[in-house]
Amino acid sequence: MKVVSGKVFIACSLDGFIARENGDIDWLHRYPDTGDDHGYARFMATVDGLVMGSGTFKTVLGFGEWPYEKPAVVLSSTLTAQSIPDALAGKVRISDKAPRAIMQELADEGWRAAYIDGGRLIQSFLAEGLIDEMTITQIPVLLGSGRRLFGEHHGDIHLKLESAEYFASGFVQSRYAVER
Amino acid sequence: MKVVSGKVFIACSLDGFIARENGDIDWLHRYPDTGDDHGYARFMATVDGLVMGSGTFKTVLGFGEWPYEKPAVVLSSTLTAQSIPDALAGKVRISDKAPRAIMQELADEGWRAAYIDGGRLIQSFLAEGLIDEMTITQIPVLLGSGRRLFGEHHGDIHLKLESAEYFASGFVQSRYAVER
Repeated sequence: MKVVSGKVFIACSLDGFIARENGDIDWLHRYPDTGDDHGYARFMATVDGLVMGSGTFKTVLGFGEWPYEKPAVVLSSTLTAQSIPDALAGKVRISDKAPRAIMQELADEGWRAAYIDGGRLIQSFLAEGLIDEMTITQIPVLLGSGRRLFGEHHGDIHLKLESAEYFASGFVQSRYAVER
Repeated sequence: MKVVSGKVFIACSLDGFIARENGDIDWLHRYPDTGDDHGYARFMATVDGLVMGSGTFKTVLGFGEWPYEKPAVVLSSTLTAQSIPDALAGKVRISDKAPRAIMQELADEGWRAAYIDGGRLIQSFLAEGLIDEMTITQIPVLLGSGRRLFGEHHGDIHLKLESAEYFASGFVQSRYAVER
């Protein structure tokens, strides 16, 4: 059955953390804004929408302004349609489907690629073979502890480097295809 | 007091492992030999010798042929001079000194830079501020578990990207200076 292609675009510390234990991403904000979006707009143009976990959804809501123009699906078994602020009606929907089921549903709706966001979601989608491409931006800092980008899984997951570049900020960005 | 400059040159999986739980590095050997040494000879020319832990020493002994021309110090509180094969006499010595003390001793002997090798040793030398430069080569694979390159430490360790390049193998190599 056809599924949407899952794509990851995420930053992590050189030691592999996407946030501190308490969720803070303060360490991401000490780098001067060079006006460079590190390929974000180009990446967003390649996806039809986002799939995120409830933790990421709450974090993004905390930013104040909803940053996405494309539709977003929040995977959660506890949130309901009532959890969505009125301003986001039509932009965000809640689903309690499993990873593969939601990727099939979105394919049926005509999506070809989805931005999979949030540490736990990325780990479960990777483990289920639902991620085709990952763009990892490594920040030049060792945090020592926090929430990891990658988790445990069975068997090696082989990747194919598609491109790599670095920025004046010291960020190193690598794009990988996930081999099957 | 003057200490030797510690330098790291190591490969890890994209998820930060330098070996499987049992020490295996089989996953490093599935990439075709392109004849490229990934900057190893150039790096070795910048150090006066090596400092390694006893685990790394035993691993390297297992290779059969000792691969280093420069002198090596094995930090261990259990190994003795008798643990060194005759063929390595004069090339390898054992020391039970603490990281900073051995780096001072080597500075007194005229060393300016040492290749610090082995996961646990790198972690303790980093935590003590004894590492000045790290060249990390990321292999395009997710192992999911194993022995980590980086460990816990107190406070963020900020790095300055000095160079980044990638290879036909899909390896991405970044060289960082450790900020103080």
